[in-house]
This record gives sequence, C-alpha cells and structure tokens, in this order.
Amino acid sequence: MPFGYNGKILHLDLSSGSIDVESLREEFYRTYMGGSGLIGYYLLKMLKPGTDPLSPDNVLVFAPGVMTGAPLGGMCRFAVGAKSPLTNAFGQSEAGGFWGPELKRAGYDAIVIKGKADKPVYIYIDDGDVKICDAGHLWGKKTGEVQDIIRAEHDDPAIRVAQIGPGGENLVRFACITNELKHFNGRNGLGAVMGSKNLKAIAVRGKGQIPVADRKLMSEISKKFGTSVMENPLTRGLYENGTAASVLGNNAAGILPTKNFHYGEFDRADLISAKAMNEKILVAREGCYACPVRCKRAVKSERFSVEPRFGGPEYETLASFGSLCMIDDVEVIAKANQMCNEYTLDTISTGMTIAFAMECFEAGILTKEETDGMELTFGNSEALLAMIEKIAKREGFGDVLAEGSKRASKIIGRGSEKFVLTVKGQELPMHDPRGKYSVGLAYATSEKGADHMVAAHDTMIASKDQYSFSEIAPFGILEPEKPTKFSPLKVRTFAYLTAWWSFFNAAGICDFVPVPRSSMPVNDVINALSAFTGWKTSLFEAVKVGERALALARVFNAREGFGVEDDLLPERLHSPLKNGALKGNFLPKEDFLEALHLYYAMMGWDEGGVPTEEKLLELGLDWLVEGYGKSDHISGQ
Amino acid sequence: MPFGYNGKILHLDLSSGSIDVESLREEFYRTYMGGSGLIGYYLLKMLKPGTDPLSPDNVLVFAPGVMTGAPLGGMCRFAVGAKSPLTNAFGQSEAGGFWGPELKRAGYDAIVIKGKADKPVYIYIDDGDVKICDAGHLWGKKTGEVQDIIRAEHDDPAIRVAQIGPGGENLVRFACITNELKHFNGRNGLGAVMGSKNLKAIAVRGKGQIPVADRKLMSEISKKFGTSVMENPLTRGLYENGTAASVLGNNAAGILPTKNFHYGEFDRADLISAKAMNEKILVAREGCYACPVRCKRAVKSERFSVEPRFGGPEYETLASFGSLCMIDDVEVIAKANQMCNEYTLDTISTGMTIAFAMECFEAGILTKEETDGMELTFGNSEALLAMIEKIAKREGFGDVLAEGSKRASKIIGRGSEKFVLTVKGQELPMHDPRGKYSVGLAYATSEKGADHMVAAHDTMIASKDQYSFSEIAPFGILEPEKPTKFSPLKVRTFAYLTAWWSFFNAAGICDFVPVPRSSMPVNDVINALSAFTGWKTSLFEAVKVGERALALARVFNAREGFGVEDDLLPERLHSPLKNGALKGNFLPKEDFLEALHLYYAMMGWDEGGVPTEEKLLELGLDWLVEGYGKSDHISGQ
Repeated sequence: MPFGYNGKILHLDLSSGSIDVESLREEFYRTYMGGSGLIGYYLLKMLKPGTDPLSPDNVLVFAPGVMTGAPLGGMCRFAVGAKSPLTNAFGQSEAGGFWGPELKRAGYDAIVIKGKADKPVYIYIDDGDVKICDAGHLWGKKTGEVQDIIRAEHDDPAIRVAQIGPGGENLVRFACITNELKHFNGRNGLGAVMGSKNLKAIAVRGKGQIPVADRKLMSEISKKFGTSVMENPLTRGLYENGTAASVLGNNAAGILPTKNFHYGEFDRADLISAKAMNEKILVAREGCYACPVRCKRAVKSERFSVEPRFGGPEYETLASFGSLCMIDDVEVIAKANQMCNEYTLDTISTGMTIAFAMECFEAGILTKEETDGMELTFGNSEALLAMIEKIAKREGFGDVLAEGSKRASKIIGRGSEKFVLTVKGQELPMHDPRGKYSVGLAYATSEKGADHMVAAHDTMIASKDQYSFSEIAPFGILEPEKPTKFSPLKVRTFAYLTAWWSFFNAAGICDFVPVPRSSMPVNDVINALSAFTGWKTSLFEAVKVGERALALARVFNAREGFGVEDDLLPERLHSPLKNGALKGNFLPKEDFLEALHLYYAMMGWDEGGVPTEEKLLELGLDWLVEGYGKSDHISGQ
Repeated sequence: MPFGYNGKILHLDLSSGSIDVESLREEFYRTYMGGSGLIGYYLLKMLKPGTDPLSPDNVLVFAPGVMTGAPLGGMCRFAVGAKSPLTNAFGQSEAGGFWGPELKRAGYDAIVIKGKADKPVYIYIDDGDVKICDAGHLWGKKTGEVQDIIRAEHDDPAIRVAQIGPGGENLVRFACITNELKHFNGRNGLGAVMGSKNLKAIAVRGKGQIPVADRKLMSEISKKFGTSVMENPLTRGLYENGTAASVLGNNAAGILPTKNFHYGEFDRADLISAKAMNEKILVAREGCYACPVRCKRAVKSERFSVEPRFGGPEYETLASFGSLCMIDDVEVIAKANQMCNEYTLDTISTGMTIAFAMECFEAGILTKEETDGMELTFGNSEALLAMIEKIAKREGFGDVLAEGSKRASKIIGRGSEKFVLTVKGQELPMHDPRGKYSVGLAYATSEKGADHMVAAHDTMIASKDQYSFSEIAPFGILEPEKPTKFSPLKVRTFAYLTAWWSFFNAAGICDFVPVPRSSMPVNDVINALSAFTGWKTSLFEAVKVGERALALARVFNAREGFGVEDDLLPERLHSPLKNGALKGNFLPKEDFLEALHLYYAMMGWDEGGVPTEEKLLELGLDWLVEGYGKSDHISGQ
C-alpha cells in the first residue's frame, strides 16, 4: 500500500458508459504528481490537436495532487482540466474545499472523462463504487437544490458534490464548477465542458484513510503551522478579513482595477472593503479541509436573499463586480457573487465581460436596443444583476456576453476590441500589473490565459522581511527586487517561483499556505511531502515537477497553434494609469518583451515559448520527443 | 560573527610584497561558496585572457569551501586554482587532509596570490598574522625535509604545510602541490604555478574555532554518518582497502586501463591490488580532518626506502604506474608514488606520460639515443623510476616529458600524437570510459581537461540498490541507466550530478562521503550545510551553486578560445578494447557527440559549450553579461 496516493485513476467514457480503473506506479505520481501535471499528461496522450472544446472528444480531468488529503492545512486542492472553450488552450482551474480529499478517500487519485452522455447524468462515487446516474431531474436546476437532491437521493448528507448550474449547461464560455456550493474551479470555462458532456455533477463519498508515511514528522509540521498561522500577519489577516483584505491595500497602492482598468484607485473602495463586509454581511469565517487559516467567508443579506451556504465574495469578486464596474454596494456584490455561484459563472470573467460591455455602452458603441433596453453604465447595480442572469441563461444580449469579452467584441465590432482586456481570450484578474510587473509576466505567459494563480506576486518578493525574503533563500535568491522593475533578478525570481507555484498545483497544495510571507516555509512544504509519501525528496525535485507541468501545458498550446503573439498583454496595461498612487505609471512594453524572452530562455523554452526538445528530455518527457535527436517535431504520441 | 566562514579573504601580491584582507558579505559566500566557485570568480575578475600561466600575471587561489572545517566527515577539502600551465584552460585541483580546515581556523576563507617574488619565499600564516618569509634555504629541497625545516623554524610541529618540491620549482607542467606530505592538489600543474611565482610553500597554523550554527543537528548528522560508515559496503571498503579496492573490480569489469589504454584487463592485476598492498606494504590506515572513513594508506618498503609519512598509492596511482605501464610490483609502484610525492609530480599525468613514451619506444618512434639510453618498454620498472627522477629534474629526455604527453608528442613528432590520450592536454585518469559512458562525458567536458573528480560515475547510477538509486531520488531521477548506454536519462542524470559534484568542490566536501552509494544521503549533506551556516538552504540552491561554478569555468575557457573541439575524447576510446570483459567494446562517437550536445543544452550552454547570457543571468552572474540584453559579448569586467 503506497502512502499519499491510491495508485488508481478512474477512466469514464460517457458515450459508451464504460468505467475503468487504471493502476499506476509510484514513478507516475512522482513524475506528474497530480493537478496540472497529471492533466497535461492525459490531455497530451488523449486529445487530438484542433479538437472542439465543446465536442464529445474533449477530455475532462478532475485531478487532486499527491498532497491532497494530507492532514495539514492547505492540502485540499484539486484541479479540473480540459481544452478550454474560452481560450482554446490548455484549460485548468483549481479549487479548494473538501471534494479533492473526499475523492482520494474514496480510493481514486483522479478522474479522466471523455465522450458525451446521451442524456444528462451525474457520476456517483461511493467508497470505490462508481455509478453513472440519470440527472434528468437535476438539469436546469441551480446548484443549491441539486446538492440537496443528490444528498437526499442517497440518504447521505456528507456526500461532496462538484457540479454545474445552468451557466455550465448553457455552455457559457466562462462557466465554472462548484463544490460544496462555495468552492470553485473558476476559470477557463470548464463548467461548459461538463455541460457539453451532459455531465451535471460528480458526487463523492469516501470513508477511507490515506496513510501517512511519517506521522510524527507530519504532526510536527502541522503543529508548527497551526501556531504560526495566528502569529503571521498574512495568514492572520486572511483569517480576519479573508482575501477581501486586499481591497484597501491595493487601492492605496493604486492597483485596484477600477472602471475596466482605466483607474487604479476607487474613491469608494471602503464601501466594498473587508471592513464593509465584516460589518454588513459577514456571518461566519470558514475554511477548507484540515486548514486552520479559515480564509473563506459566509455572508448573508436579507435585502438580496443572500444565503451563507453559497460562501461570500473573495477579493477578486469584490473588485470585478465592485471597483471594476464602479459599484459601491457590498450587498449588491454579494448578490452578484451568489448568482454566479448558483448558476456557476466565473466571477472574474463575468465582471470583466460586463465591464467591457459597460465601456462599450458609455462609448456609444452599444445602444439600449442592443442591451435589451438596459442602461449598461458603470455603477448600475440593477443592470449588473440583470445581466448576470441573462448571461447564465443566454438570454438576449446575455447570449453575446456568454461568449466572453473577446468573442463578444468580434460580434459587436465597431472598435470594441480596444476595450477587451484578455490574454489568450481570458479576462484579466484583479491585480493591475502596472504596479506589480511579475503579475504582468504571469498573466501573459500563463498557459491558461490571464490568471493570478500561477506565480508569486511581486509584493511577496520585494521586501526583505522575515516572512518573505528569507523564505526565498532556499532558491538561492538572496536579494529582493522592487515590484515596478524588470531585471534579470526579477525574471530569475519569477522563473523559479513560477515553477514552485506550478508544483503547488500539481501537488494539490493551496497557494495561500506555503507562499513566501506565509506560515509554512519552503522547506516545511518539502518535509511535509516527504512525511506524507515517504519519498526522499527535495526542493529540487519539486521545482522539476513544477517545470514539467508547465512544459506539458506549453507543448499542448504549441500543438494548438499558440505562440509568442499569444503571450502578450492588452495595450491598456502599457498605457498610463489615470489616477491613484501610480497615476501616470505604465508597464513599459520594451522592458516587458525583454523580460518575456529572458523568461523563456531561463525556462528552457525557445523564442516561440515552446520547451526545447532538450528541456523535455531533461524533464524526463522523452515520449514527447519524436525520434530523440533526429527530428524537430514534437508529437503527442 | 558568521557561521561556517570568516568573511575574510587574503590577497597577496608577491611582486610588491603587499598583504591585504578583503571583507566579504554572506551573499558572496552563498553565491560562490568556495573551491572552484570562488576560484572562477577571482580568475574572471583578475586575469586577462591570454595570460601566460607561468608568468607573474597568473593568479593563484587557495580556496577551501564554506563546509571546510565543519565537524563532520568529509568536510576537509580545498581547491587550488589558476590558469593551468598544462591545459592553458581553467585550472583547479582539490586536496583533502588538514590544511583547508587549518586555514579557516586561522581566520581566512581563501588566499588569492598574484605577482612573483624576486627570490624564493614561503607564506607563513599564524592565527591571522601573515608573513612572507625567505625560502632560499628550502629551494631545491624535497618535501619531507622542507616540512621538517619549516616546523622547526617556528618551533611548532602542528604547522600544516602546503608546498612544492623540485618538480614544481622546475615548472614541470604537471607538478602538483602537497600538504602534510601525503595529500595532493594533483592535477593541472598548479605546482608549476607556485614554482613560477618563487613560492615554495604556504605554512598555516590556526587555533581558532569555526562556530557551528546548529550544534545539535550537526551532531546528529555526524553520529548517523559515523554509524553508517562501517555498515555501508562502499565506505567500509574504502576503510579496509582504500581506493585500491577498485583495482580488481575494474579489472574484472574490463575497464582497468592497461598498456596505455589498449587493454581493459591486466593479467597480473592481483599483484597491484589492495590485497597485495595490504599484505606487503601497508602499515596504517589514515584519514583526513574529522573523517571516520580513513581511506588513506601509509605504506613502507625497506627494499625501496618507502616511508609511511608520504602516504601510499591510491587506485589512480596503482593503475597509472601499474597496469597502464604493465608493471606488476606493488613496491615499485609505492616507490614511484613516493618519488612523485617528494618531487610533487601528479601521479596520473606522470604515469600516462611515461606510458605514452613507452608506446612510442615500442613502436620505434623513440630510440635509446633519445631516451638517455633507457629501454623505455612497458613493464620496465627501472626505467619508470629513473624517468620520474629525470622528469622532476628536467634532465635529458625527462625535460621533454616534463612538458606533458601532448607537448612532448609535438616535440617528438613522427606520428607520436596518436599515442597521446588527453583532453585539453591533460592526461586521462584511470577509468576507461568504454565501460562507463558518463565518465567519457565527464573527461570530455571537464573545464580542467580529463578529470575523474567532476561527476558521479556510471556505476553509482546504474543499480537500484539502497545505497545508490534511492539517493538520486531527491533529484527526481527515478530509474537507473546502464553504464554502457547514452540516453536522455543518462545525460540528465549526468547533468544533475555534475552540478552536484561541482557543489561539493565549491563547498569543500569530499566526493567520497556524500556520493550516491555512500553513507551520507543527499539530504543529510544539505542539512549539514544548513547546520553549519544557519542558512535556510536546499538541494535546489546547492545545485545552482554547482551550476554557477561550472558556468564560471566555462566562461573562462571561452575567453581563452576553447570550444566544442576541445570537448572531444582521444580516438582510442572510440576504438575497441583489445581484451577483457568488454573486449571489442568501444564508445560510439556518434552517440557521444549526441550526448555532448544534449548535455550542453541541458546545462544552458550554447552549441559551442558556452553558457548562454540567459543562463548567466539566471545564475545571478549579471556582471559577466555586458549591457544585459543588448549585446552578445561576455566580458570579465
């Protein structure tokens, strides 16, 4: 019996109804580990280039990591992957909660799904038993009701349900997947892939235990972490204020995206801040599996029938529906958040797509006739809430916006494309790179399109304090670098930490726990991996796992025709911010391009951003290199 | 007060007699660490390209590492570096013993020497005090007498003396440096650089203590190592038989260099084996600073006046004077060894150069008239011993051979160059790459010319036993590869372990202690580094230190005009072995070239084997890249 994983991966073909179990050796787990590493492996093995993401041929993978389910804070994550219907690129998005550990306790390390059911179904996994169940009665229903029905059907209130609401069913290109109603695989439209397969939900119950190789060491690390959480300002802040803590900090720094990224400061930011949330709507602080940080919120608003069970808005949501759309009412945001959660829409892309439409409207590109009679102006709360419902249902103008801002601008035309702020077709998250250059590089180079979950932020590597700089030292990074500068040191730090964060994803570890500035130092993470699995491992091996996962995704994108032109940022980020602490600042394009190419080279990628054959061989990915040394072709094999 | 190092580097100019102390910060030590890393730093900073290695302008560096002097086995090493008079390339050679720790206990982390004294001198360092003393009375004397005189002069029998004998004074291009009469910076002719500077010796006495950051952890690692040494077959074998243990093993495997690499098996190998040594000449097993392995030998032969204080022949010496020259008398070898030690000649290059001459003689290229009347045939013990003396004194034909085999063949001409077995002009060590392909790659790519101290041998990575394979796992290497195969896996393993061994050199750690198969697992080495210095470090950082040291040496060589053509092997290795277990086997040249270029790429070096600008920037060597991003030039600055 292995430690840390089950050695079993579930394969379902929804077209044929077949259910198979693949047994895999330790080497597989140590090489790909889980999360995006495992997703990359299966997508490259199983998916033909050019596949329509919403066709039955797309492959959908639910992948916890080797650390998922370890008895330690932050070890709860799982990623969902497929070719993305939003970007047509490598699609992947992580969630926390309890679903990932539950799947592993049921005996499976991942689920790989292909084909399309001929009618709505859901998958029910009960301690190793797997059934494909009819979901005709669930289709069209919102998430809260669906969870209630599935639990009642099996008479088990402890079943963990990952599912889509009507947004996913209606193939909204930025539909998300939710588990336990309040944790989200938010980005890349993976909910639409579920919808395209007629797959409503995956319900899991697992009562097994994942054995720990070194209980004593694991317990030591856990105790140390538990104590540190409340001493460390970052994790303590996450407990007290959730991610919402960033609203006022970013606003003061001039990097709170406001009015579709024209501004970096929102004059009513205090009204959408953690303080506003805490005072007006907060009812509980909640957390994920085994985690003492408890950064999640439960909120309530009688005015808008907002229920605690759908969680509360994160920073990203407060900004994307708040400052970005110039809305200053935290209850409206909580309502928008709950609607997205019930319909399963990604709040970032939803807010960004509506902000795009608002800018079009105010510029006179869109008229009320086209927006179903709505005054789609910045600050219009009613329009915001109405438009979310229309998007989820693909009603009227909502059907246009359900395509995401980039496709919508192609439909709208008339110069609207200059208001689109996407990378690879995915809308920017709520961190303005004009004040954190690494974030710009992260948005640009993410295989998933603009994403804030792919690299440590500049603020974490800029100061030589006890919680940040010293924790980067195991990488040999001995000097801090300021956020608004590209330098070899900055790019080098970025490259190492991007691989490190990629490892978190593959291993199933939450970014909030072991990042620099946080409570679990780099070497404790490695020791935890060793304690759980019994592996003699190292930071070196972890970084290689992270590099490998990135390389797989890069090769996938290259096969799909992506190149350096897809690793660029929207021009607005190269233009001056119009207010706030960084007024007049912009991300210099020449510096950005220089940093981009330096990053490629440091990662062992060619001028087009594709891993060289030699890098693939160095990462042990021989199977991706056709006739090693004899050919330039990369094949999926 | 820092842990693990003093923060002080001594600079001497022998031309002016100036003595300066440079103070350096923690970042310097963590970046360059010591050994070849520190040597690379100073040679690139101080040495103009094209400098004559035997001119006063050459820079000579004595560099322990950060771990040198730690209270733990194996932590005794120091490297000496300069531009090599043998190769004209980056010159560097390590030694063990007690001299390195003594220098650190005297308060210095390294000594950097330039210029040339106008008359023979020696440097005397006494707990921080530094004097340049007259050595007129020592010049011309052999090592044993010199050590006695210096100790008597200062009335201190505990003084550690690193010195040259007449071989170094006479600028033999493969003269070595010895300390305590029996430890050697053997290769690259660094003794000749001392000779060229009129520097006879560096005598050191240090009574300080190097503080340990975490005594408890250090003590735990040390205890574990001490116990493991006698349980582990490799270290136990090193204790019982010394490196001589390899004679019969390599002979059985068909890779004991015999008759100038024509053969891989010597039919009288048992007569030069560890058993023969133990029975006939061994008087004691000795060791280095703090080390329980005790792999060093003390031997005695009344027949040849061999004294124990000059140590005993290592495996390299048994093979280079034994099987290579077809000599089967272990006492003759012990005598040859002692002569080299007293005159300070490198035993490998001495044996190889004489074997080259023997092959020339037997082929009729050399006649008795040219060899001072000697029958310079394989197996001729008297000729061997006589020729060693002639080389050291540059008498007669010895003056030709004192130039090393490559230069000698140019003097001799007449097709003799095909009997030369060198890389970059340095003679091959005693491991035949035809049975261990990684060793071939190591010989070829070493910045120092053919060297066996630069990478883990294939035998260490070929078997999945508890002492080897599992210890490579922290590198993410999860499969063994057989010795006689080049594959991406082999090259990848080689690349990682070459960087790892380069780290040993930089840190001052003996290769015998923490190698795969040995008693100190990879992660214990990292923990020891952390325990000594207090640094939060990792295998990742250690590998980067190793990569950095290699990159510095590569850049140095590129400046001196070295390229891919200097990273090739002698043709004989691409030709079949003529007897033994591997009879008929050869190292396929095409496979070798493919592996060479794959290795370059994996290391971030270009097609010419030079680190790319991006790799230098990734390693934090911005100062080596002129106008970063704007130019292709590499400058020493």
